[in-house]
Amino acid sequence: MAVRVGVLGATGAVGQRLIQLLDPHPEFEIAALTASDASAGKTYRQASKWRVDSPIPEDVAETTVTATDPDEVPNDVDLIFSSLPSSVGAEVEPGFCEAGYVVSSNSSNGRMDDDIPLVIPEVNADHLDLLEVQRDERGWDGAMVKNPNCSTITFVPTLAALTDFGLEKVHVSTLQAVSGAGYDGVSSMEIIDNAIPYIGGEEDKLETESRKLLGEFDGAELSHNDMSVAASCNRIPTIDGHLENVWVETADDLTADAAAEAMREYPSLDLRSSPEPLIHVFEEPDRPQPRMDRTLGDGMAIAAGGLQESPFGLQYNCLAHNTIRGAAGASVLNGELLLEHGYI
Amino acid sequence: MAVRVGVLGATGAVGQRLIQLLDPHPEFEIAALTASDASAGKTYRQASKWRVDSPIPEDVAETTVTATDPDEVPNDVDLIFSSLPSSVGAEVEPGFCEAGYVVSSNSSNGRMDDDIPLVIPEVNADHLDLLEVQRDERGWDGAMVKNPNCSTITFVPTLAALTDFGLEKVHVSTLQAVSGAGYDGVSSMEIIDNAIPYIGGEEDKLETESRKLLGEFDGAELSHNDMSVAASCNRIPTIDGHLENVWVETADDLTADAAAEAMREYPSLDLRSSPEPLIHVFEEPDRPQPRMDRTLGDGMAIAAGGLQESPFGLQYNCLAHNTIRGAAGASVLNGELLLEHGYI
Amino acid sequence: MAVRVGVLGATGAVGQRLIQLLDPHPEFEIAALTASDASAGKTYRQASKWRVDSPIPEDVAETTVTATDPDEVPNDVDLIFSSLPSSVGAEVEPGFCEAGYVVSSNSSNGRMDDDIPLVIPEVNADHLDLLEVQRDERGWDGAMVKNPNCSTITFVPTLAALTDFGLEKVHVSTLQAVSGAGYDGVSSMEIIDNAIPYIGGEEDKLETESRKLLGEFDGAELSHNDMSVAASCNRIPTIDGHLENVWVETADDLTADAAAEAMREYPSLDLRSSPEPLIHVFEEPDRPQPRMDRTLGDGMAIAAGGLQESPFGLQYNCLAHNTIRGAAGASVLNGELLLEHGYI
Amino acid sequence: MAVRVGVLGATGAVGQRLIQLLDPHPEFEIAALTASDASAGKTYRQASKWRVDSPIPEDVAETTVTATDPDEVPNDVDLIFSSLPSSVGAEVEPGFCEAGYVVSSNSSNGRMDDDIPLVIPEVNADHLDLLEVQRDERGWDGAMVKNPNCSTITFVPTLAALTDFGLEKVHVSTLQAVSGAGYDGVSSMEIIDNAIPYIGGEEDKLETESRKLLGEFDGAELSHNDMSVAASCNRIPTIDGHLENVWVETADDLTADAAAEAMREYPSLDLRSSPEPLIHVFEEPDRPQPRMDRTLGDGMAIAAGGLQESPFGLQYNCLAHNTIRGAAGASVLNGELLLEHGYI
Repeated sequence: MAVRVGVLGATGAVGQRLIQLLDPHPEFEIAALTASDASAGKTYRQASKWRVDSPIPEDVAETTVTATDPDEVPNDVDLIFSSLPSSVGAEVEPGFCEAGYVVSSNSSNGRMDDDIPLVIPEVNADHLDLLEVQRDERGWDGAMVKNPNCSTITFVPTLAALTDFGLEKVHVSTLQAVSGAGYDGVSSMEIIDNAIPYIGGEEDKLETESRKLLGEFDGAELSHNDMSVAASCNRIPTIDGHLENVWVETADDLTADAAAEAMREYPSLDLRSSPEPLIHVFEEPDRPQPRMDRTLGDGMAIAAGGLQESPFGLQYNCLAHNTIRGAAGASVLNGELLLEHGYI
Repeated sequence: MAVRVGVLGATGAVGQRLIQLLDPHPEFEIAALTASDASAGKTYRQASKWRVDSPIPEDVAETTVTATDPDEVPNDVDLIFSSLPSSVGAEVEPGFCEAGYVVSSNSSNGRMDDDIPLVIPEVNADHLDLLEVQRDERGWDGAMVKNPNCSTITFVPTLAALTDFGLEKVHVSTLQAVSGAGYDGVSSMEIIDNAIPYIGGEEDKLETESRKLLGEFDGAELSHNDMSVAASCNRIPTIDGHLENVWVETADDLTADAAAEAMREYPSLDLRSSPEPLIHVFEEPDRPQPRMDRTLGDGMAIAAGGLQESPFGLQYNCLAHNTIRGAAGASVLNGELLLEHGYI
Repeated sequence: MAVRVGVLGATGAVGQRLIQLLDPHPEFEIAALTASDASAGKTYRQASKWRVDSPIPEDVAETTVTATDPDEVPNDVDLIFSSLPSSVGAEVEPGFCEAGYVVSSNSSNGRMDDDIPLVIPEVNADHLDLLEVQRDERGWDGAMVKNPNCSTITFVPTLAALTDFGLEKVHVSTLQAVSGAGYDGVSSMEIIDNAIPYIGGEEDKLETESRKLLGEFDGAELSHNDMSVAASCNRIPTIDGHLENVWVETADDLTADAAAEAMREYPSLDLRSSPEPLIHVFEEPDRPQPRMDRTLGDGMAIAAGGLQESPFGLQYNCLAHNTIRGAAGASVLNGELLLEHGYI
Repeated sequence: MAVRVGVLGATGAVGQRLIQLLDPHPEFEIAALTASDASAGKTYRQASKWRVDSPIPEDVAETTVTATDPDEVPNDVDLIFSSLPSSVGAEVEPGFCEAGYVVSSNSSNGRMDDDIPLVIPEVNADHLDLLEVQRDERGWDGAMVKNPNCSTITFVPTLAALTDFGLEKVHVSTLQAVSGAGYDGVSSMEIIDNAIPYIGGEEDKLETESRKLLGEFDGAELSHNDMSVAASCNRIPTIDGHLENVWVETADDLTADAAAEAMREYPSLDLRSSPEPLIHVFEEPDRPQPRMDRTLGDGMAIAAGGLQESPFGLQYNCLAHNTIRGAAGASVLNGELLLEHGYI
């Protein structure tokens, strides 16, 4: 029987992607949709300006949207997906956890908290057990797991494949799609025939979230990886798909061939949304490209290419679909992991 | 009296920009236009598909195009600007030098030759005296000076401003406009809603040309700078203006403030096409941007911004107009330098 | 058992789409791929620069490409799909028909010939019987059917739905995607931040093909519809999907409501590639839009919207995926029709 | 001595263009800048997010912005340029006229009022005398003149050149740039790789404003032109420049040659911002194009091309820079006309 799920912030860009992914999902059944108070009481069709490239599922369209409040969500909902703006998330998500809901959240609030697992299942599924610590400390019946920022998710799986070589220094430049900023985040006048070398707060997310994700959890405490990461973030005129240039310096020698092999063999999981292979490594030097490769693995694969030895260690490019693998799909995959690990 | 000049490869993208810049130039007078044999004998209007954003100068339009051959160019032409494809340049440029013409070339052939000065006037005007060595070795009556690749020109002036701090390691990611590949270089199907993390040969140009430009000329020999440079190059859907993310590690401590001051104070030259200031340093973290800032200093300024201390030294962004400062304007400026230094 | 098919011009943009559509098609099996002489003898992977947004089918990738010559195609191939440049098509397609092959061609040569059926199955399937006349006149064992130009296919089904009202005058402005010109047809420098109000020969195709498609076939001769059509064609910076503004003046009164009903009820066919509904009529005034709606009906539906009464009759917008419904899918659908009507 | 002018709504997209045009204007001197209450008291640099492609004029940057209220504007200001949102314009513009200010407004409110002159100086400068009627009726010391909508301005001058042939029916399809909607009007996710066949209220503006502009003023009353106009409006991914496809049916025969001649000879005015020629007629069938031709005549020219005889009268394309000729420049030109006609 499918788990009944709710979506917080269901009308936004990530909320729409969540609905697109959850509607056909055999393990989950959409049972609650919340949005701002202004939308409460409307049908989802009325409340949302649907802009995903497949029609609104008919039953979702007729669902009545409620306010984002634990009291408005049916008790038989067992799992909550949250794609709220971080300020709203900070305010309302803890209330859902207190009320007993398990929350898989894409919102950035709390991601770096010591007792909140920040998880990419193929990378650090074992961090999920931090939830025991979390429940002890916070006294929640529910639980909160976060997925990282879209630009972090894009490059961390490739680094995870290289940890055996001793990660030391990482430089990363991002070329990010406009959908990462939400539907109204980037105006057309800002970005057509242009690029913007700044995304507020983004560099810090890449630098800190990556070290938490690749850290070690000893059952009680989580230590962050001690590599150093320097990020430079750019917005470019693409719709979907974040492309990243990466340089990695490692303690041990690392050839391009060894890196390609490590990435190709890096395992995916036996979860519905985890693609096989997880990392698709291209031979062609001009790949991956956002429009060509963002839908690999139904948007859940990581694409890598251009592996070569640079003057300073390994150099390569990687790509992921920022609103699927980087946001909505990441939350759904964390939901699948929560289910498998018995938290639901 | 204006110097009579010729343009080799006058119908291409850089050739058109050269004409746009040379036509109103008080020191130069267009006296010869060459193109492929197929165009020889036609008027320039017939031979070129003019696509620059100002009308063809009327007198240029009616000029008869000749083949790219020293015998076809009038003897009273004193300076040749070349924007030939590098394979053609390698074949025909030496003939012009032998025939006594001074050539300011944007073509990539020969840039790394020991006796060919690769010059950005504000950075290494003193390298021009390598022409004495060149004439000795090659027995040319003419001379050949090259300007670097467009992506090299964008970041080297900012590095030049920082040499006192002891340049050691440089990482650079480029976001390059489509005009850098010429009119037919990038098809629309390749680049709309996309980015391409590969430009053939480009990374090597950034890595090697920068070290030659920042090298020392002792009057006899040119030694290259011993910094190391690692480059990653991307094509994005912008028309003009290359944007670059740079990280610099230096021997001495380098704060963002000290770097900004060094860039702001880096001198321009008293040449017509050298802008004042040479480097425009933005305070706003989201600048420079290609569409907003590529025309600073009539397209000849370097824009920099986002200066900050990263985990590994200084981090910043820079931008230049790739077909003006990065190509046609670079050649014209070298022409002005040749004139000032008495080579014409 | 699946019909064995060949693809002429298999490496081009439409050829790649044909392979993408034919590979999973249960009624057809790809048995021959042809291209220019330069590609003959190579595997398809070597010969094509694959740029469709799904991977090359593995068995197709390893197929050896032959020259475009009837002698090079196995005899047990029963149906040929052609997406050759029209000049090449004019030269080689008749040879295939003489050699006994039935050809479903997307190439523009011969479309207006009196004895060549120009067919959109949902619009004028009965024109297919013109093949009897064709065989009589040309003495072919094979046969040739054409689908119209992509911009013609976009608006003709909507007109077909309105024929009962007496079509008299039609104005149509097109906003066409770059893929309509093939992979290298439109350079990025031509179209980024731009639009081009001219596509050579396109206006004439809309004006004449539409009248042939809506004409009557009496079993012996085809008379063209006597409506008048005036077209104005524009290229805009979209990848796929032609959008068209249409005004129709009819002999009888035609309200927007009646037109919407006629379009909604216009029947599709019981062929695999004919979508249900054929015409998707939007209520939202700002639809259809290329990126949102081009994949309706797997790219085979026609989308319409903005129906309103203008000062001069009915006004509306329509949209179709130009390389699926407008080209490769159109040829495949004609192949299905040929099969159903017993020509294969 | 320069006329002291104020700009209402100075921080918006058109407000910034107004400042860019007025700052170097020898007849006008910027003496007041107004914006929303939230901006009042700030310097212009603080209040505006400057996004025009030339730096903020230094003296403007330091000017203190006031609320949009006649009491906040110095009495010695003689002319007001208004680029307010229409709802705000409707509310506050009359107050400025009552307080004695002459207002040249780009806002759409009131454009179709019987006693408000809607003026393109080269087309209907004589309508300006409607101001006498206006003052009689409204008892204003000041006066109000409007310029039309950007998409109207683009095609009306070409129609004005053809009035002698007896305009009867006009069809027009527009391909409009995103800047027409203001800085945040069109999000990047809406328009990249897309087109939107709907701009709220725009079709009606083309259909009605054009008839008012080409109407006759007999000294007491203005009668509208009795041609019929049907418009279909599209937003496309270009930054600046509206392109329009036009069909005109006339009472008298009209050849493409006669139309081209009439357009070429249509006179400009002896006003600073009126370009010579007013209408630039291209021979090349693929022109005008937005990126290539929008800056003709410093953005104040009308470009036309593609003139041909269609099945229903004349067909052609036209183009104008929508934020210069179509908005800010239109208001400035009306200001110059007011000055010349002695209203200031």
